Amino acid sequence: MLKYVAIDDSFRALAEPTRRAIIERLSRGPAAVSDLARPFDMTLAAVVQHLQVLQECGLVRSEKIGRVRTCRLEPDGLKGLADWVAERRMLMERRFDSLGEILAETAQEHHKSHTKKQGKRK
Amino acid sequence: MLKYVAIDDSFRALAEPTRRAIIERLSRGPAAVSDLARPFDMTLAAVVQHLQVLQECGLVRSEKIGRVRTCRLEPDGLKGLADWVAERRMLMERRFDSLGEILAETAQEHHKSHTKKQGKRK
Repeated sequence: MLKYVAIDDSFRALAEPTRRAIIERLSRGPAAVSDLARPFDMTLAAVVQHLQVLQECGLVRSEKIGRVRTCRLEPDGLKGLADWVAERRMLMERRFDSLGEILAETAQEHHKSHTKKQGKRK
Repeated sequence: MLKYVAIDDSFRALAEPTRRAIIERLSRGPAAVSDLARPFDMTLAAVVQHLQVLQECGLVRSEKIGRVRTCRLEPDGLKGLADWVAERRMLMERRFDSLGEILAETAQEHHKSHTKKQGKRK
């Protein structure tokens, strides 16, 4: 159940474009909070709040050295979410594959019985 | 921009456990609305509302034949979301790889200069 709550939180956190932009920036390397905030047209406090949401759901971690707080992605933070999406797509594709096989077999059977009939006619 | 709005909506839609459960069920094959609703402790109207959210963001489509409405996953519905997550993880892993290479090179340089010094001492 805990795992599901974590996925809920990750999906909710990433539904917000600013938070996704922060994750996009951090996937290219760690950054200080002030550097992260610069491109956004919002107060530092607002960016810090977004960072808190990302930290609470385990997507980001931060560390304060002296007066600078540096943020980085949690290496496994996106894993649960990636696994969930990948499993859905795999199941769906496997189903399409077997549907394809059934259709191919049906077409082959149809072709065989059709050829047999034609053979008898000769 | 449109692509980003779509990803926003998908993340928001999937932050809800019932909607994720519906997607999980549909990844195993199409289902009638009444069959989809059965396992949930909620009214059919509530399930229909969840289905509407999933349809609006392009994750599910439905078709009514006679009196039965059948729902199925949109084959590419999860693609945008899967791509976004995969790209973040790839960038992060690539960065870890290059960090690993830098560390390995530094260790090798250190080893070489250390061996040289020892050679000179002999």
